[in-house]
Amino acid sequence: MIIIIQCPDRVGLVASITTVLAKHELNVISLGEHVDKEEERFYIRLNVEQTKDAILLEQELEAVLPADSLITINPLPQKKIAILVTKEYHCLADILVRNYFKTLGAEVQCVIGNYDNLQDVCRRFDIPFYHVSHEDKTKPEFENEVLKTINKYVPDYVVLAKFMRILSPEFVANFPMKLINIHHSFLPAFVGASPYRQAYNRGVKLIGATAHFVTNDLDEGPIITQQTIHVNHSFSTADMVKAGREIETAVLAKALELVFDDRVFVYKNKTVVFE
Amino acid sequence: MIIIIQCPDRVGLVASITTVLAKHELNVISLGEHVDKEEERFYIRLNVEQTKDAILLEQELEAVLPADSLITINPLPQKKIAILVTKEYHCLADILVRNYFKTLGAEVQCVIGNYDNLQDVCRRFDIPFYHVSHEDKTKPEFENEVLKTINKYVPDYVVLAKFMRILSPEFVANFPMKLINIHHSFLPAFVGASPYRQAYNRGVKLIGATAHFVTNDLDEGPIITQQTIHVNHSFSTADMVKAGREIETAVLAKALELVFDDRVFVYKNKTVVFE
Amino acid sequence: MIIIIQCPDRVGLVASITTVLAKHELNVISLGEHVDKEEERFYIRLNVEQTKDAILLEQELEAVLPADSLITINPLPQKKIAILVTKEYHCLADILVRNYFKTLGAEVQCVIGNYDNLQDVCRRFDIPFYHVSHEDKTKPEFENEVLKTINKYVPDYVVLAKFMRILSPEFVANFPMKLINIHHSFLPAFVGASPYRQAYNRGVKLIGATAHFVTNDLDEGPIITQQTIHVNHSFSTADMVKAGREIETAVLAKALELVFDDRVFVYKNKTVVFE
Amino acid sequence: MIIIIQCPDRVGLVASITTVLAKHELNVISLGEHVDKEEERFYIRLNVEQTKDAILLEQELEAVLPADSLITINPLPQKKIAILVTKEYHCLADILVRNYFKTLGAEVQCVIGNYDNLQDVCRRFDIPFYHVSHEDKTKPEFENEVLKTINKYVPDYVVLAKFMRILSPEFVANFPMKLINIHHSFLPAFVGASPYRQAYNRGVKLIGATAHFVTNDLDEGPIITQQTIHVNHSFSTADMVKAGREIETAVLAKALELVFDDRVFVYKNKTVVFE
Repeated sequence: MIIIIQCPDRVGLVASITTVLAKHELNVISLGEHVDKEEERFYIRLNVEQTKDAILLEQELEAVLPADSLITINPLPQKKIAILVTKEYHCLADILVRNYFKTLGAEVQCVIGNYDNLQDVCRRFDIPFYHVSHEDKTKPEFENEVLKTINKYVPDYVVLAKFMRILSPEFVANFPMKLINIHHSFLPAFVGASPYRQAYNRGVKLIGATAHFVTNDLDEGPIITQQTIHVNHSFSTADMVKAGREIETAVLAKALELVFDDRVFVYKNKTVVFE
Repeated sequence: MIIIIQCPDRVGLVASITTVLAKHELNVISLGEHVDKEEERFYIRLNVEQTKDAILLEQELEAVLPADSLITINPLPQKKIAILVTKEYHCLADILVRNYFKTLGAEVQCVIGNYDNLQDVCRRFDIPFYHVSHEDKTKPEFENEVLKTINKYVPDYVVLAKFMRILSPEFVANFPMKLINIHHSFLPAFVGASPYRQAYNRGVKLIGATAHFVTNDLDEGPIITQQTIHVNHSFSTADMVKAGREIETAVLAKALELVFDDRVFVYKNKTVVFE
Repeated sequence: MIIIIQCPDRVGLVASITTVLAKHELNVISLGEHVDKEEERFYIRLNVEQTKDAILLEQELEAVLPADSLITINPLPQKKIAILVTKEYHCLADILVRNYFKTLGAEVQCVIGNYDNLQDVCRRFDIPFYHVSHEDKTKPEFENEVLKTINKYVPDYVVLAKFMRILSPEFVANFPMKLINIHHSFLPAFVGASPYRQAYNRGVKLIGATAHFVTNDLDEGPIITQQTIHVNHSFSTADMVKAGREIETAVLAKALELVFDDRVFVYKNKTVVFE
Repeated sequence: MIIIIQCPDRVGLVASITTVLAKHELNVISLGEHVDKEEERFYIRLNVEQTKDAILLEQELEAVLPADSLITINPLPQKKIAILVTKEYHCLADILVRNYFKTLGAEVQCVIGNYDNLQDVCRRFDIPFYHVSHEDKTKPEFENEVLKTINKYVPDYVVLAKFMRILSPEFVANFPMKLINIHHSFLPAFVGASPYRQAYNRGVKLIGATAHFVTNDLDEGPIITQQTIHVNHSFSTADMVKAGREIETAVLAKALELVFDDRVFVYKNKTVVFE
């Protein structure tokens, strides 16, 4: 049983929580706790050996915690996701493989592409693919069609697996902290378009990738995880794109694992991640 | 205030401990907890915002914990250490610099070398250096002289900072879990002598370093931390030795920081490290 | 045009080679060169901007190089491979995806599994899968059947993508430096069976993976590339296996890229890799 | 003997160069070569086993290379450096230790600090320390005094080892590609002041350090090398500063090793580094 709680900090929170658990003879296997002193905010994630009636437990925890606590017990074991793509295959294919072999920690419901070249790989894994072209459409028209397609399902998260169109605040507002993007740079370096070209021009000695929640501010949402790899003068922009594929795939996979495993808390523009 | 506890696992330990703290209005800033299911053993490290009478607190914790619990409250803030060296300077100099600038988290009491070439750098930092040559001595004679020299001080830890003589079980028995070594390979690869030569001969593509507590079994004690770096065909054995210096220095520094900050628990042949 | 040469070292080899190229107005874009002083052996890999008749060029190079030089001009642009698997999917699926999207640098001809659970994913990518069970067979019988199946094709390399049976020297002898294995440890640590269990028991703070050519000595062949990642006390053996999957996949992918791109030279028990 | 050449690219350069060497029976041990296709520029670094009269060799190479080639044979084996510091000790102490043990690859001539707290450590290593305060001085006054102090020596490079004052273009112009800085972020992220505070506020999951040549554009000069390390939500700004110290020290040490070993070419705003 997983219990996750986020609330204003005060003395005695760990004792209050674990005393409720001990009363029911529940054994804490592992426990991540964090207090953000600047925000005076408390975060805890408990992995409990046994299972107990969640509704009862939540009532008892509510009774001993601050009024505005966010308590989740036994979060959805199997999240459902929709995926948006453009043309690049690597992140999508990695997710489809994990989905097929049941190691994704979530279920892929559908894939929506503004190009159709990834339709065939989805078909091979029996995943519905919707081609929603952005051509000859206004941005609201395009986004409405994407939204309508997503809404055929009720995904818990929408994953932008190298989706290369900028989404409007109106669209983003539909999925607060439910929209996960992989950005092909070690943010905040190289925001915006063509980060590998920017990296080449700047002559950096490392490139990276960043998985983050999407908010209204482009490339500015809470960061989930990020990594870098070394490059050198011999890398053309194309070489960086190629090397970047590997790290983008790995970073998005790691971020999804953390999110689907309920290890990521969001507060304001930051995340707390209990690995 | 730091509180560290190690004991057999049972239900309710976190609640028992944190309830004692809450009773005294003590706020837990951060908390690392681990249950080893195979060993049925419980480990916790609590960082508490306020300070309280340690003796009283320990009594109250003892009252609610298993009989054979190991409880430490406010461990020594400033450990004292003795250092053994042979000829190589890099780990020693790094420790001396941190000691001088008060960022080591410990106080260097003395350095003992079986060669005398590191005497001058110790003198420059006003650290007593004892030259105890191993030449023309039996191993017991040599070790007795080292022991007698160490015993002029009462160090909490003895650090083998590239000390290249194998110590006897009799010597080691004087410092149970108090003897920290830096080994120049990613153990358990390349135990024994000349690991870089072994690495060269094997054609490995990475080399490493391992900091560990010394026990009777050579290179077999509990590992504190380890790292690797990439090498390639162009590295001669000498190049590996040179590259290895950097990583040995970094790994030993990291291990000492963890130990001096009371983040390392030892049980049987393994460590639990709350970073 | 790629030119790769391996030969005994002597003065003037680079001049001899590049003078032949300059005579034909060929421009060297990039060049990797290595002299192994212990073995007195010379290795060079040249990337040439233009293309030229390979047979003519080889004759001219032979004329200016030692008699026993190994010269390859324009190595096969598209290698063909057969893959052996047991039950684990991650390395295989990664290769199948790259094969499907034409980024593998090779063509997968067939997959042979001693279990049948990976048949379906092969079918989805239209790759022939052969189930050759080892049960109720002697080792020679099993290996003969595998060999016969491979020999339906003429693969340039045979990739052991988590194939968990030990192959006999007789079998290995069919594929000198053509048999590539991914081993789930940072060799030479944890040779043999269950390296993650060994790693857990030893309490290491990093785990790794090694891609190598298979020779008669188990886990002792020339290493192509290897990587490690950090683990800690909270990792069970199962957690290490899971984390290991990511690194095994990445290391094998990297090794295959290097091999298929003709960047790996083998001499005796070591590789020279021009990245 | 080390030979380094930079010139416009054309066909046959490697042949022209190595033929000159072969004529003198010089054996090339290792060779790094790069052609920048966008800039049509050629770079080569040759490590030659034997030694030869440099003036003669340079004349012969000039005769076969483009008119505006930059040819350096046997660059200064022991560079001389001046160091500028402010208050932080870690980079300076690391350089002083290497200097003392003759592994820096350069000789430290003097240290200039705008505070005096690092005077004592310099004294302990017998290195002249000049305290040039910036207080009660205009920027030109301060910089003139620094410049006059440097000019008591004739350093080949000036190293900014955590020197925290912004230097004017006029000052920088005195040391074209001779001024090496360590910046405490993975540039181009977090240019300007307090990068760790910026990193904390942005909630990044990695921090880094960058060694670069200083040009007129603040934090925009050619990058020599850079690295990142992982951080998480538990890191305060102070924790990042502390973790950053380790990586700043390592990155600056690596950059200096590369520069002092004549492995770094600069052209426009980028470096070519033959590791």
